[in-house]
Amino acid sequence: MIDWKALATEKRNSVNSLIPKPWRLESPIPPASEQRDVTGKFIQQFLSPREIEITETDAVGIVKNTTSGSWKAREVAEAFCHRAALAHQMVNCLHEIFFDAAISDAQKLDDYYAEHKKPIGPLHGLPVSLKDQFHVKGVETTMGYVGWIGTFEGKKNTGKEKIFESEMVTELRALGAVLYCKTSVPHTLMAGETVNNIIDYTWNPKNRLLASGGSSGGEGALIGLKGSPVGFGTDIGGSIRIPAAFNGFYGIRPSSGRLPYEGMANSMDGQNSILSVVGPLGTSVGSLKLVIKSLLSQQPWLHDPLVSEIPWRDEQEQAIFDIVKSSGGGQLAFAVMKSDGIVQPQPPVLRAIEMVVKVIEKLGHKVIEWNPPSHSRAVDLAYKTWVYDGGADVHDAFALSGEPMSNQIKPAYGTRKAEYTASQIAAVNIQKREYQKEYMEYWNSTSALTGTGRPVEAIIAPVAPFPAARPEMYTYYGMSTWVNLLDYSAAILPVTQVDKSIDVIDKEYKPMNEHDEKVYSSYDPEIYDGAHVSIQVVGRRFQEEKVLALTEILGDALGKHIA
Amino acid sequence: MIDWKALATEKRNSVNSLIPKPWRLESPIPPASEQRDVTGKFIQQFLSPREIEITETDAVGIVKNTTSGSWKAREVAEAFCHRAALAHQMVNCLHEIFFDAAISDAQKLDDYYAEHKKPIGPLHGLPVSLKDQFHVKGVETTMGYVGWIGTFEGKKNTGKEKIFESEMVTELRALGAVLYCKTSVPHTLMAGETVNNIIDYTWNPKNRLLASGGSSGGEGALIGLKGSPVGFGTDIGGSIRIPAAFNGFYGIRPSSGRLPYEGMANSMDGQNSILSVVGPLGTSVGSLKLVIKSLLSQQPWLHDPLVSEIPWRDEQEQAIFDIVKSSGGGQLAFAVMKSDGIVQPQPPVLRAIEMVVKVIEKLGHKVIEWNPPSHSRAVDLAYKTWVYDGGADVHDAFALSGEPMSNQIKPAYGTRKAEYTASQIAAVNIQKREYQKEYMEYWNSTSALTGTGRPVEAIIAPVAPFPAARPEMYTYYGMSTWVNLLDYSAAILPVTQVDKSIDVIDKEYKPMNEHDEKVYSSYDPEIYDGAHVSIQVVGRRFQEEKVLALTEILGDALGKHIA
Repeated sequence: MIDWKALATEKRNSVNSLIPKPWRLESPIPPASEQRDVTGKFIQQFLSPREIEITETDAVGIVKNTTSGSWKAREVAEAFCHRAALAHQMVNCLHEIFFDAAISDAQKLDDYYAEHKKPIGPLHGLPVSLKDQFHVKGVETTMGYVGWIGTFEGKKNTGKEKIFESEMVTELRALGAVLYCKTSVPHTLMAGETVNNIIDYTWNPKNRLLASGGSSGGEGALIGLKGSPVGFGTDIGGSIRIPAAFNGFYGIRPSSGRLPYEGMANSMDGQNSILSVVGPLGTSVGSLKLVIKSLLSQQPWLHDPLVSEIPWRDEQEQAIFDIVKSSGGGQLAFAVMKSDGIVQPQPPVLRAIEMVVKVIEKLGHKVIEWNPPSHSRAVDLAYKTWVYDGGADVHDAFALSGEPMSNQIKPAYGTRKAEYTASQIAAVNIQKREYQKEYMEYWNSTSALTGTGRPVEAIIAPVAPFPAARPEMYTYYGMSTWVNLLDYSAAILPVTQVDKSIDVIDKEYKPMNEHDEKVYSSYDPEIYDGAHVSIQVVGRRFQEEKVLALTEILGDALGKHIA
Repeated sequence: MIDWKALATEKRNSVNSLIPKPWRLESPIPPASEQRDVTGKFIQQFLSPREIEITETDAVGIVKNTTSGSWKAREVAEAFCHRAALAHQMVNCLHEIFFDAAISDAQKLDDYYAEHKKPIGPLHGLPVSLKDQFHVKGVETTMGYVGWIGTFEGKKNTGKEKIFESEMVTELRALGAVLYCKTSVPHTLMAGETVNNIIDYTWNPKNRLLASGGSSGGEGALIGLKGSPVGFGTDIGGSIRIPAAFNGFYGIRPSSGRLPYEGMANSMDGQNSILSVVGPLGTSVGSLKLVIKSLLSQQPWLHDPLVSEIPWRDEQEQAIFDIVKSSGGGQLAFAVMKSDGIVQPQPPVLRAIEMVVKVIEKLGHKVIEWNPPSHSRAVDLAYKTWVYDGGADVHDAFALSGEPMSNQIKPAYGTRKAEYTASQIAAVNIQKREYQKEYMEYWNSTSALTGTGRPVEAIIAPVAPFPAARPEMYTYYGMSTWVNLLDYSAAILPVTQVDKSIDVIDKEYKPMNEHDEKVYSSYDPEIYDGAHVSIQVVGRRFQEEKVLALTEILGDALGKHIA
């Protein structure tokens, strides 16, 4: 019998011990009841003005300075390592720390620059955080499983332990990025909160009564505290978008096959109906574009068999800006979907959508209502793909150590069930394709409604029914999973913050069903006060350039060029 | 108990009755023992000089005439309908005939041209034949199953019968193509020969002792007899390439997601590990390019959720021509793979590969040997995807009528087996991805061997171990299926014809294994004499433009600009 608690404690302590002594907090921070928000001024008190200047610059601003030699990569790396160390001590957001390697890598970049008088690549000196699915030499990948400690994806003596690197890691290094930490995830990856038996719970730094989101929840908390300018997460049901939204910054779920997932750890690997995708989260739209465009310049389709050969298309981005700038002010057209017909978002989310609609209209663009094919079909189909193997993969992972499954995971995986057969999986694949086709033709049909002669550019929709989940109260994922079923590109747009004096409970509202009732009853203005509120901008498949352009236009209009 | 024989006879007769009386052969053609080859002069005897001129022009030449008003669409349609009718009477290559609709559609195109003085689209007046998986209004889709007669994909009263059209059919019509027949397939589609209980066997018109190939075998025979300038087949294990090769003309298997499969009938629909792809077969490389480029101009990604947004890329094609035309004569680099390590091709195929190597060298390009990761891994994995459902789908289809399964299908599907579970399918998907990654890196590594600084442009390889299969002797598919596993783009290059005086049996050869022994012993120079011999040109994923450019360069050098 393995003592999983001892193993977990040892792992947690060994990671924490990598925080240099001068960066350790002398005393624990006040409890959430006293200090709900640890962002902004709270975390700044532990940093020098220069560190604050560096860490509150977005990725675009950082590379402007590092690729021109104005800022040293080493100083930038040290500032982010320090701030990440503080963030971790406040909200438990890191699984692996490799600050020494980062500072050493940054020094090499500075040496290169000194010798060659030019940067090594477009991301020269840019710190990039990675979700704990990426393999990085020198450190482990536990993905929150105690049973993965000391292994390679749960297997011992593979020869890959602490040596093998994921394809994107290789590419980021070639581009000049500095890697320094891996961020926390919920074990199994299948939750919108981040909790596991190694680091416990990753809290939302803006409001520590709430979740940081999941499954890229460590990225959410870390970037939310500006302990990273840009990082990479993954998304099979909302796992990039949810933490970006809960923490009030930008993120994009690209379509599958746009960016390289090759060589990453995963849950239910080989499930082929809805693929998990990798994508960036960051404090500005520009930062997302910067890293995507840089990665595509590496021709990842020559190193990842699942990546489609679609280079960055400046012209698709430009087409949007051209419409906006055309003489007389050209019109874009958006659709708005407040509810998916199953669950009504909580008041702050509804208000955020209203705000975005007003901004769109103020900018002179069109907004139509979105009345798509039934979303409950999408939600049901997406859920089926999560449980094809009846939980075999995750149960095997828990069994490695005997550790318990967290409550957040139990609804889907608590009981191991029969596996789907080939014919049952094929039936889901057909229904999925039919749904995609129907949805696509609905989207095409909006050209008759927009007045622009084109279908809508994107859909404005909630990504979750709440600003952020309360612990163990993330009961409905349908607002994010439909995007995965359709394989659409979707970015997060941070909009506002909860104001308990405005975002009051609608006592007249009659919930439509059990899901809706749970979401409705979990809203409490007192608890939510101050939390970030974000929505998603959903584009068609492989429309990353367009979605980012639209999101930037809206973010700028909302005064959030840098979140 | 359904009388499947009566149903099949009735269907066969009803289709044959659609051949206008003047086009019916007065007496049966001589048996294969007397008249092996029915192409060329043999079929020409039943046609007028003008009909011969039209039908022996390739698609590029046809649209040049029809889009400029030189040729009337109606005259072109009538000529091809006539020649297709003759072809069918010689080798059983059609499942559906709709000459009346075609001639009426062609007349409308002529009327349009007369009124607007311009063509309706780039395929204005081009006859296009379709494999019997396409749904076309007015006719059935049986896919060779007696149980599908009078149904929509085996289901009755769906409301779609004889009304619903596949996405590509809609697009072809919009481009101006004239649809006039659907071509024969082996029931289940899972064979390299074409046989079913409705039309019996589709023979190879160049050598009626041999198979026309499969599963797009009707396309192979029809285009081989020039009863169609260009047609569409599908390929999950070689089904476009095999009939193109066996009948000595061009064809391309695009990567999955390049062309729209939406709304087509299929076997084992929903199997998601290796997707069947749709692609063109035709008498010139230009004709394949013409139809692919035209279809992509329709933005099929807006109407098929599985199509990737990759427009036709002139620049990728041009990059190849630029290398060749650069001052001093730039070098291309090819790899050559004579055997896959499992089976040695028969003497005529080996000779064809040697001929291509000599042509490449004569053109001043480089040839290196291909020593890839084990092909037996690829062959085993591809086969597993064929039997995920244990044969459930095909057994259900046979059970609709009680008709027997042909011998060609029995090795894979004779006995119904247990279905794969979700975990077993996931394991195949992972092994497939790992194999793809390994193969891709091997390909990348050839940049060190070519002398051009680039990896090889393409691989020259056999597509089958024989020039064409002898009936019931297609025992090894591994030479085509590895391309499907890797999702590579691959075109057929017709090279030569069997010459019994040159292509003698190598009596010293010691077969490597049981597969190899069967292939070796099935070669008989007397039987094969005169048959077409073709090979495949294999490019990386989504390299259709490049593969076609390379195939055109080689085809031109072989004197086969039009096959």
